[in-house]
Amino acid sequence: MVAFAKVAALLDQRRTGYSLPQAFYNDPEVFAFDLEHIFRRTWLLVGFECELPTPGARLALTVGKSPIVIVRGRDDVIRGFHNSCRHRGAELCAEGHGKGSRIVCPYHQWTFDLDGRLIHAGRMPADFDKAQHGLGAIHVETAGGCIYACLAEEAPDFEAFRREAGPMLEACNIKNAKVAATVTLVEKGNWKLVMENARECYHCAIGHPELAVTFPVLTKRHFEAGDDPRLLAFNARMEAAGLPIGPAEGEWWQAARFPLNAGMTSMTMDGEPAVKKLLIEKEGGDVGSLRWTSEIHSFAHATADMVFYFSSMPTDVNETVVTGKWLVHKDAVEGQDYAVDQLIELWDITNRQDRDLVETNQRGVNSVGYKPGRYSDEAESLVQRFVDWYCHEARNVVTGENRPFV
Amino acid sequence: MVAFAKVAALLDQRRTGYSLPQAFYNDPEVFAFDLEHIFRRTWLLVGFECELPTPGARLALTVGKSPIVIVRGRDDVIRGFHNSCRHRGAELCAEGHGKGSRIVCPYHQWTFDLDGRLIHAGRMPADFDKAQHGLGAIHVETAGGCIYACLAEEAPDFEAFRREAGPMLEACNIKNAKVAATVTLVEKGNWKLVMENARECYHCAIGHPELAVTFPVLTKRHFEAGDDPRLLAFNARMEAAGLPIGPAEGEWWQAARFPLNAGMTSMTMDGEPAVKKLLIEKEGGDVGSLRWTSEIHSFAHATADMVFYFSSMPTDVNETVVTGKWLVHKDAVEGQDYAVDQLIELWDITNRQDRDLVETNQRGVNSVGYKPGRYSDEAESLVQRFVDWYCHEARNVVTGENRPFV
Amino acid sequence: MVAFAKVAALLDQRRTGYSLPQAFYNDPEVFAFDLEHIFRRTWLLVGFECELPTPGARLALTVGKSPIVIVRGRDDVIRGFHNSCRHRGAELCAEGHGKGSRIVCPYHQWTFDLDGRLIHAGRMPADFDKAQHGLGAIHVETAGGCIYACLAEEAPDFEAFRREAGPMLEACNIKNAKVAATVTLVEKGNWKLVMENARECYHCAIGHPELAVTFPVLTKRHFEAGDDPRLLAFNARMEAAGLPIGPAEGEWWQAARFPLNAGMTSMTMDGEPAVKKLLIEKEGGDVGSLRWTSEIHSFAHATADMVFYFSSMPTDVNETVVTGKWLVHKDAVEGQDYAVDQLIELWDITNRQDRDLVETNQRGVNSVGYKPGRYSDEAESLVQRFVDWYCHEARNVVTGENRPFV
Ligand code: FES
Ligand code: FES
Ligand code: FES
Ligand SMILES: [Fe+3]
Ligand SMILES: [Fe+3]
Ligand SMILES: [Fe+3]
Repeated sequence: MVAFAKVAALLDQRRTGYSLPQAFYNDPEVFAFDLEHIFRRTWLLVGFECELPTPGARLALTVGKSPIVIVRGRDDVIRGFHNSCRHRGAELCAEGHGKGSRIVCPYHQWTFDLDGRLIHAGRMPADFDKAQHGLGAIHVETAGGCIYACLAEEAPDFEAFRREAGPMLEACNIKNAKVAATVTLVEKGNWKLVMENARECYHCAIGHPELAVTFPVLTKRHFEAGDDPRLLAFNARMEAAGLPIGPAEGEWWQAARFPLNAGMTSMTMDGEPAVKKLLIEKEGGDVGSLRWTSEIHSFAHATADMVFYFSSMPTDVNETVVTGKWLVHKDAVEGQDYAVDQLIELWDITNRQDRDLVETNQRGVNSVGYKPGRYSDEAESLVQRFVDWYCHEARNVVTGENRPFV
Repeated sequence: MVAFAKVAALLDQRRTGYSLPQAFYNDPEVFAFDLEHIFRRTWLLVGFECELPTPGARLALTVGKSPIVIVRGRDDVIRGFHNSCRHRGAELCAEGHGKGSRIVCPYHQWTFDLDGRLIHAGRMPADFDKAQHGLGAIHVETAGGCIYACLAEEAPDFEAFRREAGPMLEACNIKNAKVAATVTLVEKGNWKLVMENARECYHCAIGHPELAVTFPVLTKRHFEAGDDPRLLAFNARMEAAGLPIGPAEGEWWQAARFPLNAGMTSMTMDGEPAVKKLLIEKEGGDVGSLRWTSEIHSFAHATADMVFYFSSMPTDVNETVVTGKWLVHKDAVEGQDYAVDQLIELWDITNRQDRDLVETNQRGVNSVGYKPGRYSDEAESLVQRFVDWYCHEARNVVTGENRPFV
Repeated sequence: MVAFAKVAALLDQRRTGYSLPQAFYNDPEVFAFDLEHIFRRTWLLVGFECELPTPGARLALTVGKSPIVIVRGRDDVIRGFHNSCRHRGAELCAEGHGKGSRIVCPYHQWTFDLDGRLIHAGRMPADFDKAQHGLGAIHVETAGGCIYACLAEEAPDFEAFRREAGPMLEACNIKNAKVAATVTLVEKGNWKLVMENARECYHCAIGHPELAVTFPVLTKRHFEAGDDPRLLAFNARMEAAGLPIGPAEGEWWQAARFPLNAGMTSMTMDGEPAVKKLLIEKEGGDVGSLRWTSEIHSFAHATADMVFYFSSMPTDVNETVVTGKWLVHKDAVEGQDYAVDQLIELWDITNRQDRDLVETNQRGVNSVGYKPGRYSDEAESLVQRFVDWYCHEARNVVTGENRPFV
């Protein structure tokens, strides 16, 4: 409640079109507010269906300080649960991938079915009501091979995303992928600075010389083609090939297919595909990239040969963990169809450059001399959308309203 | 005062028979409350008389953030002091064991007698009153070779413990022991989760396969014999040999002698004594174990060959330092009568398993989806006693009352 | 505001002549208050003119959590700025020394002139007002080759320092020096404990046996000569040589020249100069030392052969970074005129001894049994001045007054 008053006052101070007041980036109470309220209000891209290939497969991860687990049921339905035992709260499934016909707590072996029901608890009295001790469910939806989760009581709308972005994702064949590599970075910066960094390419021309080889770093918003004949031709070619380009966006998401720089077919060091076995065989794999985002924490790029997934999760007021995953066709053979080093090289370099920029940003934002500065409308429109979205949600929380973000 | 209101509200929320509301396990304000108030209200088992063999011997340790020092005086009386110089507060004695005829501050050499009186302070004016700058005393009591300390203004009753548990401890011959090994573990978990773990064996059958060889892991509360003929025979044999079995308990302590698993005479990997020279020679050392506890932080086991001591001390809201000490007969010779590796192996493995369980517990308890769950009356009666005791003491603090815990 | 009430209550509790109430040394809210208010009120010795030899040279450092940068302009004027970009706040200049004709942000390359004006910002709209996005200036003054900065809106008086201490510093020839070595120590202690340690030699006789060889460790306040014939002769000789001895002091500073122990001409292990090429050639370099201080964070000693500079900067409630710099004549050649090992040996040993004392002090001050103790009037007069000054400034902050400290 103290935090609500503080956040409300900060929202009043905030000036549209300008970076946020300092406390949004470095105040522990605002951070606690973010974890408790903002991260619970929205959909998170937590993984991919191919990561849970068979009944009993599970994927555990931590959202802020909250461990969750995603599980494929015997009925093939993918569900999500708070990864916290209903006995004394132990984390049930260790972070990462696992498998098992039941969920057995490592502490006292209380045993839950894959649908969350408590089915065994040793040494409990006769009057113990198992039905009162099932796992807490979280919202889970899937679309185009992607798994989304939401920790809210009532989740925001998912249907618009499924309807509009679903076909764009389906075209990427993610259901037939596998995770080929995962890299985790710890960044000494507030999660909002990580996401502002991830939402603009204003810094790319100088900050990411390697990325600039393939990625159109001077692009605006959703890679608008304008009257560029090359871009217009790309768009027409994609539509003809049945690869919807969008752009589409909703309250908490965005998706658009766009062409890479001339002559480039993948986001690698040289623009050549890093994988021989393609996920998208249409047009010989010359299909640009589909970028899609969850406003609060993630973006992903699907080229013909791979999917690169970026997810940031706050761990402290000025610490954020970034997880990168690279997916390739499930039948691609390591060492034969692809080499992991080559597969990850470009985005790994890029993520480390961004980490350094985020940390530089945080150090300067901590200054008693920090003042919010004006964003570039051209180069930072999606940063502005992010901070507008955040401030809108934060206002909803402190007023108890539920106004949609438009 | 803010913390008092918060703790009072949390106590109101708490449901008897269930694990505690989340904030008791992970809120920094509740933790500060625990350190400031709860750890000062009760008796702590801080060491053993044999650790201070001669006048001037001292043992320094830290309770929460408060360094204390236990000192044997020239009159052989064991006293305790805040280990904080009365000049500018420097820690007087470095953590661990030491010796000296005076306590000399390492900063400006103010010098205190072993009874705490300031006896020298250089370059101070003539009107400086040394009597106003003696060391702050803490309560110290001994029983059966154990040293107990309390940081409260007024300490709770010690006489019941001395009267009832004293003879049980005397029978263990701890006065003739020595510390043969010490191991320290840092656990990323709140101290209450460490103590809940230490108060039940619900997790032992699966969690401690090595311990389960010798320890009766399905035992209840104080190892009640019920109508088990083996246990009843053990109890009769111990009484006949003059080894009181209890069980006995008071507000802040418990003590009971119990038999190990059939054929086992020590808590080691194979159940054989780890030390040739025994502390208890009665019955050829086939005397089970005496377990005794201080509710807030410690337990210990005395078998015929050794004493194992476990003490947990909070260092941060989710960090606790566990100190294990192994004591053997003072005349036992290392390399001849015992090997340290063998001596410590079982409890060291067990403590590390418990650390992992505690850390798993803490991660899950941090979840926004954590809900207090029901304890097992059979397997977790002492966990319930611990949380009931804690809540009772916390209520006393916030109401300013001093009701006894019954 | 919560902090203001807390600080006011603590100031009321404080007893003159005694060490401070505990919370001043270990409370996170008091620490935040110190960083936000106390460190902004006063002059800091941030470096030396010789560190910025040419236009465009810069020196970046962090005051608390606030990065600042000192820059020599094309007009040779030395200026200071908040080292935080006016776009999204990134740290502009990496900590340490740098050089460049413009200040270019590493994030999106906004470019500032050496006087702080924004002169280039890419992709910003036509209506963007660069004049509104210049760097935030901080106060900078120089005297005798030293650079002082103040982060307050209105800086306290500097003229008295320039007038009284300036000539004492000029005599030390610091303008013709260079930095020969820098050592950084992280100390687990509150900045006030670091400064109390730095303001007395009560601990030196025992705590610094190496320093005691050359430094008069039993000295009082400003090395008062009293009727000691050796000291009176030294004073007379210095005056005759045109080396003013002071002592002089103002609200936030002190300066005094004093003789080293008999036969010693530098603060080195053996009292011999560590540098062949002297900064002060008068009297063959037999000129004792000039000690000058900034009350809140620094002291420095200028002997004939070198300047030793000590600056402490708080990084957390119980963490302080100490930076030591050793300056020698700019024409002294390493390996020929001096060896770095020898140059730094005495103060490096001394600083590490002090770090251990500070950490010992902090551990003891954290005790629930800590009580403020009486300072020695003779040996700790400057410690008393420091805490009096701090309390005076803190009172000014919480009352909103601006009373001078006398
Ligand atoms: S905490 Fe899961 S079974 Fe006990
Ligand atoms: S702090 Fe102990 S003598 Fe000064
Ligand atoms: S933060 Fe400096 S140019 Fe963007
Ligand atoms: Fe980037
Ligand atoms: Fe255990
Ligand atoms: Fe010192």
